[in-house]
Order: sequence, then C-alpha cells, then structure tokens
Amino acid sequence: MNSYKLSDLTEPVKKELDLFSKEFKNSMKSKVGLVELVTRYILYQKGKKIRPILVLLSAKIAGGVSDRTYRGAILVELLHTATLVHDDVVDNAEKRRGFPSINAIWKNKVAVLMGDYLLARGLMVAVDGSDFDFLKTMTDTVKRMSEGELLQTSKTRRLNIDEPTYYKIISDKTASLLSTCCEVGARSAGSDTEKIDAMRNYGEYLGIAFQIRDDILDYVGNSSVIGKPLGGDIKEKKITLPLIYALKQSSKEEAKGIIKTIRSHPGPKQVDEIIEFVKSKKGIEYAEEMSELYSQKAKECLNIFPDSEVKESLARLVDFVVKRKN
Amino acid sequence: MNSYKLSDLTEPVKKELDLFSKEFKNSMKSKVGLVELVTRYILYQKGKKIRPILVLLSAKIAGGVSDRTYRGAILVELLHTATLVHDDVVDNAEKRRGFPSINAIWKNKVAVLMGDYLLARGLMVAVDGSDFDFLKTMTDTVKRMSEGELLQTSKTRRLNIDEPTYYKIISDKTASLLSTCCEVGARSAGSDTEKIDAMRNYGEYLGIAFQIRDDILDYVGNSSVIGKPLGGDIKEKKITLPLIYALKQSSKEEAKGIIKTIRSHPGPKQVDEIIEFVKSKKGIEYAEEMSELYSQKAKECLNIFPDSEVKESLARLVDFVVKRKN
Repeated sequence: MNSYKLSDLTEPVKKELDLFSKEFKNSMKSKVGLVELVTRYILYQKGKKIRPILVLLSAKIAGGVSDRTYRGAILVELLHTATLVHDDVVDNAEKRRGFPSINAIWKNKVAVLMGDYLLARGLMVAVDGSDFDFLKTMTDTVKRMSEGELLQTSKTRRLNIDEPTYYKIISDKTASLLSTCCEVGARSAGSDTEKIDAMRNYGEYLGIAFQIRDDILDYVGNSSVIGKPLGGDIKEKKITLPLIYALKQSSKEEAKGIIKTIRSHPGPKQVDEIIEFVKSKKGIEYAEEMSELYSQKAKECLNIFPDSEVKESLARLVDFVVKRKN
Repeated sequence: MNSYKLSDLTEPVKKELDLFSKEFKNSMKSKVGLVELVTRYILYQKGKKIRPILVLLSAKIAGGVSDRTYRGAILVELLHTATLVHDDVVDNAEKRRGFPSINAIWKNKVAVLMGDYLLARGLMVAVDGSDFDFLKTMTDTVKRMSEGELLQTSKTRRLNIDEPTYYKIISDKTASLLSTCCEVGARSAGSDTEKIDAMRNYGEYLGIAFQIRDDILDYVGNSSVIGKPLGGDIKEKKITLPLIYALKQSSKEEAKGIIKTIRSHPGPKQVDEIIEFVKSKKGIEYAEEMSELYSQKAKECLNIFPDSEVKESLARLVDFVVKRKN
C-alpha cells in the first residue's frame, strides 16, 4: 500500500534540503555546553523533516526557493522541535523516535527550558531576517497549537467530544503548523494571494488527514512499527474520530458502558474490547473515509498550479501521509 | 529599613497602571474554558507588577506613555507570567505567591502548555501592533532567560561556579527581562538612543542588584515572610554569590569539605552549618556590598534625566528592590 518512500517525493528539492540541513545545524549552535549537547542529541536523531520539505516544495510550486524560504524552513523546524520537546514533558513520554526523550535523560527542567530556547531561536531567525509576515503566522500558530492541546486536555477529562470539537482540536494542534509551513513557503516565493491561500488550504487539509491517520493507527497500527502499544489514546482517555463515530452508532446505554470503562483505568483486556467495539461499529472505516476526503480536498488545492514534478510530489506526499503505517 | 511601599513609588503612573490592569485582563481572554480558568486563577493572585511598572515609568521619564507603552507592558507581563508558570514545572514548585502552583493543581501538562500559550499571546500583542523592535528585544530575552537557566543547571550539576559565571547567569536569567522592560518603555516613548541606552542599563543593573538580593535572602531572610525555608538554594546545589565569596576566602581543604557536604544531600542541620560558614566568612556582607554597588550604578544611569517625580520613583524603586525582605 505505502508504495512511496519519502526520499522519492523530495527529489525536486533534494539540493535545497541538503542546504537546509546544514543551515539548520548552524542555527542551533550555542555557547552553553548543555544546550549544545542537547541540540546535538536532537540533530543526531534525524526527524523525517516533513515540515521543511513542505516549505521547500510550497516555495518551489509557488514561484521558487529564496533566502527567505530557508529561514522559513528553519523557523518551522525549530518550532516543531520545540513543541516535540515540550510534548514529551506534557505526555511524560520516555521515548521519541526510538531514542530516550530529553526529559527522560535530562529531566523535565532541561526539557521545558530547551523547548523555550528552541522556540525563541526559531522566532529570532524570522526577526533577524525581518520576516514579519512569518512572525505573524507563527505566533498565531504557537497559540493555536497550545490552545488545541489544552482544549483536548479539558475535553479528555470530561470525555465529551463530538465531531466538530474533534476537528477544531486537530485543526489547532496539528493542521495549523502544516498549513503554516505551506503558507510560509508560498510567501517566501513572493507569490500572489491566490497561490498563498491555495497552499495554506492544502496544508490545512493535509494536516487534518494526517492527524486522522495518526488516530486510526492507534487502533489498527502495527505496534512494533509504531514503537508503542495499540490503544494508547484509550488509556489516556483521548476520544478520537473512530471512537466518536462508533459511540454515535450505539445505543445510549451501550455508549454509557464504554465511557464508563474508559473512565475506570481499563487494563489491556478492556482496551482490546474497546478496540473491537470500535471496529464492529465501523469506526475505522468511517475515519478512513474522512481521511480520504481531506486528502482529496488537499489535492484539489493544487489544481490552480500547472503540472510539474513539484506538483506531483505534493500530491504524492498526501498519499504518503494518509497511507503511512507509523 | 524597607521604608517604601511599592504603591508610593507608582504614584506618578497610578492612572496608567489601572488602565494597564484592565487591558492585561482583556489580553488573556480565550474561548477555551480551561485556558480561561487558569488565566483567571493567575489574575486572581495579583503579582507585584514590577515589570509593567518599569515599562510605564521608563516611558514617562523618556518622553511619555503612548499606546505602544501599554502593548509593551502587556507583552512583558505575559512573558514574565509564562516564565513563572514554566519555572514552577522546572523547579517542581508546589506554591507560587502563597497559592498552589498551576502544575500542582492542573499537572505539568497544563502548566507547560499554558506557558507556551502565554508566550505566544505576548508576542502576538507586539505582532498585532507592528512593534517589531519589541519583538527583536523580546525574542532575544526569552533566549537569554532559558539559556541562563540552562547554564545554571549545568553548573549546578558540577558545582563549579566562579564570580564571572555567576554574573553571566543572573544577567541572562533575571536582568535581561528587567532591562528589556526599561528599554521597551523608553522606545515606546519615541525616545532617542542615549535615553534608550540609559534606561536599558538602568534595568540591567537593577536586575543584577535584584537577583543578588534574592540570593542573599535565601541565607538571611525571614522564612515566614518569604514563604519557604532558608537554605533552599543550598539544598538544590545552587551556588550563589554569598557562598562563592565564602569559598574563595577558605583554604582549599575547607572549601572541598563544604562542596562535599552540599553534594551529599545535606539535611537541615548541615544546611544550617553551611549558612553559618557563609556568614563567618562574610559572604553576606560581600554580596550586600555588590548589590549596593549595582544599585548605585542603576541610579547613576538616571543622571541624564532632569529631576522629576518619575525619576525619584525610579531611584526609590532601586532601594525598594535591594532592601526588600521577601
């Protein structure tokens, strides 16, 4: 199914991506030894770089890569890294990308401060380049990401999430940054409003499809590939699309029973039962349909651009995201 | 000794401070219930507002309070609040201003995210007002504050701090924000470079005097007024100016013994012994002298301004900070 490798999709911006990696490394230099040590550890892990790739491809389709494009790519990757470091504190995560998390090695103290440091460094790249349009969209994105997570946290406590709330949460916490990547890329190419809007929407739909896929994988993924056991969201009382749909298909009484089980710190057997319940109510199929729908919407945003290798990559990137297995 | 009340010192900007408080409250509004709840809890606690006071007084002495001044004051207070919320996670603190900390009530998750949210909101105030000069100084300040804390953390682990490193740490983690408050205030008044520089330096020296005083209070404060027991820094292996001086006055062997005790998770009796050691070596007197020296330097920065009620307040604010008992 997952017939694309990420490296195939990045072919049109291969050189640019190499240059980005070098500049990204430089942007993380610090005179404080501990900061250097932690950033080197982060760099060593090598993420998928989906966000800088989006910036570069969006710039290329919208007019061409410029100096501003590189600053935009560094900015989004620094911010993304900052949020990952904070997320691991937030989730008390022991691992990230198969490596022990920053908080696991250096404790929460260093992780919180490093996140703040990376966030500030990211914004400084835009300040130093006088990219004030980037700052506007990025500060709004940081606000939306934290607000989205906080909305999920409070809804999680009450276990009452409906479909519109779910979309609001994933739009804020996930899609906002991907959307910003594409917007920043298009802006950096000196593009017109129509193209900037098209790329912003592409990123938004891609982000929603991405997060729905992420939430599906918690039910059907291969736990050894994902690197964590299935049903983690259930244990954390996170109500995502497959479960929301399954609950809506159930009688009031049945739904009440499921919610009660989730509330009661369910063990592995009960988690499996809930996964089976969601499958039997076709919650996975429904979520897959929705993910597919948003993928289509993302691809449609590309219609205004003439055919090209870059356009092909952006379209295939949507499939890569939605068909990925981890 | 502490003959000034803060409310006396703020008389020249009383009206402006009231207006600030209203606008600050508005700036914290959110549609997410949990965010509203936490911000209301923060507002209820009412901090001393030293940072916005500095912005307002600095604007007034340098030319006059403008719309930009209020945005600057809101920006620094949001950022300060963000760092306090993160600091409590960093320090695992249970209390803040006599109230349970955010992390104690809502757990680290909410505290980390709320800090990010407040940071973004602060920067958005500057973005929305097109105060790009504020953004430049503020992002640099956030970087310095986190880097300063990280430098202290790494030095704490090795217990090897000399006087220059101590000044570097407190300049980054504390003085940078106070300095920025005064700079932002002067800038918002449309002031010239000489006055902006004078106020930036005033804030820097004030901040250093402030932090030295803070570190002294950990040795000689009234624990019921401070709201925490004495010697907390020793327990956390934080080597501050009184101890640095005392160690320098000791034989190599004596110093080694003290360091060994600090490293060995000292109990209350041993902490008391270390406090006595510092006092006997005149570490407190030395730190007080240095705090006084930086107070004088701060006051000298005001010399370029003609005498006024505002100037008097800024000078007395230095004494307030350096003679405070909590």
